[in-house]
Amino acid sequence: MAFAAPDDTENISVASHAAHLLTMPSALAELSPGEAEFVIGYTLLRRFEAGTTVIAQGERDRTGFMFLVLDGDVTVETVVVARANAIVMSVLGPGSLLGEMGLLDGAPRAASCVALTDVSAAVLTRSALAQLIDDDPGIGAKLMIAISQRLAERLRESGQKLLAYTQLTRAMQQEIESLDPSSRRKQ
Amino acid sequence: MAFAAPDDTENISVASHAAHLLTMPSALAELSPGEAEFVIGYTLLRRFEAGTTVIAQGERDRTGFMFLVLDGDVTVETVVVARANAIVMSVLGPGSLLGEMGLLDGAPRAASCVALTDVSAAVLTRSALAQLIDDDPGIGAKLMIAISQRLAERLRESGQKLLAYTQLTRAMQQEIESLDPSSRRKQ
Repeated sequence: MAFAAPDDTENISVASHAAHLLTMPSALAELSPGEAEFVIGYTLLRRFEAGTTVIAQGERDRTGFMFLVLDGDVTVETVVVARANAIVMSVLGPGSLLGEMGLLDGAPRAASCVALTDVSAAVLTRSALAQLIDDDPGIGAKLMIAISQRLAERLRESGQKLLAYTQLTRAMQQEIESLDPSSRRKQ
Repeated sequence: MAFAAPDDTENISVASHAAHLLTMPSALAELSPGEAEFVIGYTLLRRFEAGTTVIAQGERDRTGFMFLVLDGDVTVETVVVARANAIVMSVLGPGSLLGEMGLLDGAPRAASCVALTDVSAAVLTRSALAQLIDDDPGIGAKLMIAISQRLAERLRESGQKLLAYTQLTRAMQQEIESLDPSSRRKQ
């Protein structure tokens, strides 16, 4: 179901804004403006008030969709079981994709996304994606390449953070051993 | 260029093995056997002796391909600039994909892959992938969904490791502070 009804000027302008965002480097740079408009035709517009949990960590049932943020900012937060406080991992603005991992593998949501301001977003469901690929496999393949590129980029960032942590924990271990030589035997 | 020439019995058997591996959960479970065979038709067979560096960390030029491991094991290693020793991140066996991030974004290789045993692999280049998508966009889209799912799965694993490191460094920081109360002011 497309959200841009032909007689709805506001929605057409939102759809055009959404299509423009889809071609931004932070989202899916591989899509041409025309292809981005085609993709947006398969999305639904949703609005969230500030403070709303858009995606809930651990959610198992409602995982079959992803969001393109059109306006506003969203925090990505992870709750560690042993701690009460959520750790804010990042803040994402217009042009960002949210929830594409759940769309792809249907596994429980890995993190929560909370609207930091009022947010509007274009939602692509798994069934709409399947319909899009069925209707135009070429644009479907290009959309999937673009989503993959974004996942690959995040995986690179994540790998760099892991390496930094590897170095940090080694340095901390050395500091602990220098403060408490007996700890060396405990390791 | 396909590596399975119709008159080459050994290569046909390798291609059939490769197609089977492509449908395994660790690789690209979404492909049917027929679709996997179609994909394998766009790959080239390569063999590497034990000890060969299949992908070199930091490589900028030869990034436009990925491997499907057919036989043997490959270690994924990362060298931290400040240290001489490579850190082995994982060991991957038959059915594993290597180098799909470089295929997608062309960025320098994030890690090295070294043949732990003699290895045979099916290589998919970026141009062969483009040709495949051009020839059958539907299978191309399905291949890209499968690659995305694998990236998403790795991103989840990576996120869990990052959370574990977050907790570990907090615990180590507390230990350092308990051993050296003056360190609290330094932070």
